[in-house]
Amino acid sequence: MTAPSTQLTLTALRDIPEVAPGDDLVALICAALEGANLTLEEGDVIAVTQKIVSKAEGCLVDLTTVEPSEQALALAAELDKDPRHIEVILRESRGIIRRQRGVLITETHHGWICANAGVDRSNIAAEEAEVVLTLPRDPDASAQHIREGLRAATGVDVAVLITDSHGRAWRLGTVNLAIGVAGMLPIADFRGHRDRFGYSLRITTVARADELAAAAGLLSGQAAEGLPVVHIRGAGYPRGEGRAVDMQRSVERDLFR
Amino acid sequence: MTAPSTQLTLTALRDIPEVAPGDDLVALICAALEGANLTLEEGDVIAVTQKIVSKAEGCLVDLTTVEPSEQALALAAELDKDPRHIEVILRESRGIIRRQRGVLITETHHGWICANAGVDRSNIAAEEAEVVLTLPRDPDASAQHIREGLRAATGVDVAVLITDSHGRAWRLGTVNLAIGVAGMLPIADFRGHRDRFGYSLRITTVARADELAAAAGLLSGQAAEGLPVVHIRGAGYPRGEGRAVDMQRSVERDLFR
Repeated sequence: MTAPSTQLTLTALRDIPEVAPGDDLVALICAALEGANLTLEEGDVIAVTQKIVSKAEGCLVDLTTVEPSEQALALAAELDKDPRHIEVILRESRGIIRRQRGVLITETHHGWICANAGVDRSNIAAEEAEVVLTLPRDPDASAQHIREGLRAATGVDVAVLITDSHGRAWRLGTVNLAIGVAGMLPIADFRGHRDRFGYSLRITTVARADELAAAAGLLSGQAAEGLPVVHIRGAGYPRGEGRAVDMQRSVERDLFR
Repeated sequence: MTAPSTQLTLTALRDIPEVAPGDDLVALICAALEGANLTLEEGDVIAVTQKIVSKAEGCLVDLTTVEPSEQALALAAELDKDPRHIEVILRESRGIIRRQRGVLITETHHGWICANAGVDRSNIAAEEAEVVLTLPRDPDASAQHIREGLRAATGVDVAVLITDSHGRAWRLGTVNLAIGVAGMLPIADFRGHRDRFGYSLRITTVARADELAAAAGLLSGQAAEGLPVVHIRGAGYPRGEGRAVDMQRSVERDLFR
């Protein structure tokens, strides 16, 4: 665990340009940090939205090339959606968790449960109107790749999060959360700890990576503004070699599927 | 909506003493702000953990006075819990959502779905070992009360959140979220907005109050440390007279009960 802090500062980097397939995100982040007069320090966190990672990694599917399956055609009719879009969602998914008119919640191949398997049509340039963006193939690997690139460029080992906005059970509205993690453990584990009165704690495991992502979402999540990289300083987080998939509940431990 | 910012600063107030029933939280927060050299400004947010609000409001139940019902006795045997604790949980709940050995998830009278109806045994002083803490009776009213007190004391109208850590479906670990809101709308609504390429947005409603609470949790949530009040500056949030219960999904819109 890094030293506890009483102050936390988040800075959205202004100078990230529109990202295209093949772009070097590490170079873009380093330039934007410099533009913000920020020098990376041990314990910093860099939160990057899934969208620019997917774009850099070329996770784009041209719908005009997609042949919907029987299942996609049936689902599209039921949900009132584009069958080619549904086909891409199904290809990105292990299984369907819930569906209802206009809503399709699936489990992605990574194990994330979210609407439309994270497949997105917005925020793609106009000339690509028929193109959808899928989640990165392996967001933990994407985070690790950026972490290693930043370490090579700056000599500083930071934590990196790949974030996305997901809906939740029971509560309206999305929150930004982590689908890729490197350079930290996503969960702070207080099991066996006692409170200051000597009692065991009610809250024993805290999803620090998701709290960090939610904090970053306050700056990056102003949907139309395009501030996809947030620098976080002063967050105490558990050190280690963790991955976002460590936050997934196994089916046996999940009462809400 | 407040002006978009690229920087967000969170400060945990160090000087909040142990809270007892009847304590004036507004006075404690004002003194702690002064101790941190912070002067409230328009657009600031004050996040307060449920625990000190419940203590100040006297939401304590002495288990030695609790007579478990038949239902509590049966559930306690099934879940391997203290029947008096279960009795208090049932009294705080509209209904049981899920149960499993060691886990009881209910819907509280406020409409929050969480473990043990938020009834907590830890972080109570040793001489009160048989005492449990329940959630505030009306956390939105608690937030509004603190907001009005801060406005009276400082002349500045801030947003106030009452926060608690809850588990989630699908993901391990708790995150801090808002169960009480005053001085803001909990949800930022982008419906009808377009992205910079002219497309309608995939993410249309964002739970800003929960993102703010999660951010505060990074400082207040170091379970044993007792930093129950966090000051947030630079967060863009939707202005208005909202309540946390506005974030509750109606049963018809909730696919996960």
